[in-house]
Amino acid sequence: MTYKLTRCDLQDLDRKDPLASFKNKFLLPDGILYMNGNSLGPLSRRAKERMSDAVEHEWGTQLIRGWNTAGWYDMPTRLGNKLSQLIGAADGEVVVCDSTSVNLFKAVSAALSINPSRNKIISEVGNFPTDLYILDGIKQFSNNNPTIRIKPRNNIIEAIDTETAVVVLTHVHYVSGEIFPMDLITRKAHEMGALIVWDLSHSVGAVRTDLNSAKADFAVGCGYKHLNGGPGAPAFLYAAKRHHQTMQQPLSGWFSHKKPFEFNDDYMPADGISKMLTGTTGVLGASALEASLDIMLEARTTDRLAKVLNLTTIFQNLITKQCSGLGLTLASPENPADRGAHISYRHSNAYAIMQNLIKRGVIGDFRSPDYMRFGFSPLFMSFEDLLDAVEILREILTTKSYLSPEFQVLNAVT
Amino acid sequence: MTYKLTRCDLQDLDRKDPLASFKNKFLLPDGILYMNGNSLGPLSRRAKERMSDAVEHEWGTQLIRGWNTAGWYDMPTRLGNKLSQLIGAADGEVVVCDSTSVNLFKAVSAALSINPSRNKIISEVGNFPTDLYILDGIKQFSNNNPTIRIKPRNNIIEAIDTETAVVVLTHVHYVSGEIFPMDLITRKAHEMGALIVWDLSHSVGAVRTDLNSAKADFAVGCGYKHLNGGPGAPAFLYAAKRHHQTMQQPLSGWFSHKKPFEFNDDYMPADGISKMLTGTTGVLGASALEASLDIMLEARTTDRLAKVLNLTTIFQNLITKQCSGLGLTLASPENPADRGAHISYRHSNAYAIMQNLIKRGVIGDFRSPDYMRFGFSPLFMSFEDLLDAVEILREILTTKSYLSPEFQVLNAVT
Repeated sequence: MTYKLTRCDLQDLDRKDPLASFKNKFLLPDGILYMNGNSLGPLSRRAKERMSDAVEHEWGTQLIRGWNTAGWYDMPTRLGNKLSQLIGAADGEVVVCDSTSVNLFKAVSAALSINPSRNKIISEVGNFPTDLYILDGIKQFSNNNPTIRIKPRNNIIEAIDTETAVVVLTHVHYVSGEIFPMDLITRKAHEMGALIVWDLSHSVGAVRTDLNSAKADFAVGCGYKHLNGGPGAPAFLYAAKRHHQTMQQPLSGWFSHKKPFEFNDDYMPADGISKMLTGTTGVLGASALEASLDIMLEARTTDRLAKVLNLTTIFQNLITKQCSGLGLTLASPENPADRGAHISYRHSNAYAIMQNLIKRGVIGDFRSPDYMRFGFSPLFMSFEDLLDAVEILREILTTKSYLSPEFQVLNAVT
Repeated sequence: MTYKLTRCDLQDLDRKDPLASFKNKFLLPDGILYMNGNSLGPLSRRAKERMSDAVEHEWGTQLIRGWNTAGWYDMPTRLGNKLSQLIGAADGEVVVCDSTSVNLFKAVSAALSINPSRNKIISEVGNFPTDLYILDGIKQFSNNNPTIRIKPRNNIIEAIDTETAVVVLTHVHYVSGEIFPMDLITRKAHEMGALIVWDLSHSVGAVRTDLNSAKADFAVGCGYKHLNGGPGAPAFLYAAKRHHQTMQQPLSGWFSHKKPFEFNDDYMPADGISKMLTGTTGVLGASALEASLDIMLEARTTDRLAKVLNLTTIFQNLITKQCSGLGLTLASPENPADRGAHISYRHSNAYAIMQNLIKRGVIGDFRSPDYMRFGFSPLFMSFEDLLDAVEILREILTTKSYLSPEFQVLNAVT
């Protein structure tokens, strides 16, 4: 597909965009071009209204009765069933709870419990750090005595062997956006008798993800990135139905019990996916996420995924056209189909440039040592936004305004 | 102390109550006598305003920048330092994060990591179920190969021996309200070379709790009961400073890393209490809890604790005076100093009576098989409330209105 890139052309694409009306559902501040929904999605009108309702009417007036009358008790599975539609899972295969890190601990432990005769865990060099840190925790504490093998991306397939218990990979890489071929790697894992746990944190809501079709075993992911669930939104956990009977997980708190309100001393796990729950649901955070899921489900999947491809391709083409020779190097796959809904560029002054962009209202983010990430949302971004962002970037690069001392101080960033 | 119990006397106590003005800080519905703050504390004006601010201004306008500009990144330790003042801990010994169940898993695992030559864990028959279920999970998972010994309350002290690695007890029992002598049991554990983990879920904000004075090792607790932090509010975890260097915990997600934003592959734990964190902070839930902590810290501790004793004593006396011979049996310690901020009564029709009470606006709760629990808050309850509640209870018991079919159907309750 060839893209024309004049402002008129982009405005024309916006007019034809079947998702154009979604932008108005979000409450983005004036003067902000938000290209960081891959890190923290923005507030929507519906999430704002739902939070007000959850606080004032559910908590405020239902009080303890809200567990039944406001549907709090069912939130992990109700939200899970909504979310399952975005990742190719079936009803009853997904719960929403805890953080991605906690859920990864449960998912990997559950995978090990199904494959107890093996103890090798394979993951990727440069995987999102919390995934590697959680594997380290499992290694230190698990009676399965796991060994962890962290391999470069190109050696993952060959590293999966008949000693491998579990493969733990992130579907869309958090810096490069590169997509692992889920079907291929899952098949290889199964051929070797291993199980696979996919981290979908940068996939869900952004790229085609079909866990059942790939026959994936377990998956986890994040609620606050492309799902727009709010800062620190609860995460999710998927377990294929065929594992529900045999899987065990160590964080067996009362919400994973078959009959939590009988208050028995003896642990008896729930039958289905609820076995993967732990403690009491964080209702306020889950309420914002549910509102955001409802918006996501109103958009046709094919429209969403096509628009992501168009946005990322056009942005890349605009950068090539307007910023060539200004020191940027693409750090994501060239082919749009090989990457997710964010693109990274390297530059020797990446940190200062990103600070300068943010000051100008273009919010992306910086990743050490020299990456600038730009995220793309099919719901709250227009095609014309891309041109506005690239023109500001070009001006910053051309004038070298980023060399101003105000942009040089390194702060904690997320 | 002798209490007079006429309405005039109670009104007089309300007039002299130094905490009387706090009731107006809470948004309780008209016609509700809320006696379930031990299960889910009510909404306050400040929490409502803070949630609106967190949603609209922090998330809505700060977006990803909120991690720095809105102080999200420091929430676990900032809230922890506020909370530490309620439990006799020092600055830097408490973090707010995750659920009580997840935190108990971390605290017990950390205690085992410090005491690796032993593997016996002692807890109580009838402890809050999630505590026992989490211990079961640790037993199934941990390479320490733990054995769990669940003993009746009266045999706990003698059960702690030189093979004991960790004692895990709930300070205030969730049904009876009975208080374990923290100093005595902690001392016995230490004499035997064991460590102790206290669950403060029903203590914090309700009874005197002085972890440092008792030399407690670890503690966890709940944010949504007497702290009024909102449904499923984040929980907390305390670790005595002397253990910070040596303790390890298995849920070693990126928020427990020394330098999380350097995105290194290798895990390096943070130096202090942050080592006990796991994943990304649930900002929305933590925001409501922080507002609630701020209210709690405005009340003088001595006033709060004295009022709890007065409320529970007067309620007990009113029940004795007005409901004797109507089938109620006290299921909590007689002596107010031996119990926390809730009292349980048994009755052969406890479930139906509680449903009838709730219909009449007196919200307590039912615990299987035949307990009615009534919770007491020094902040949002008046002395006159007690008389109103007891008069309604007496009427229900006298007229046996609870025998109506509408009150007989057992629903899930929390």
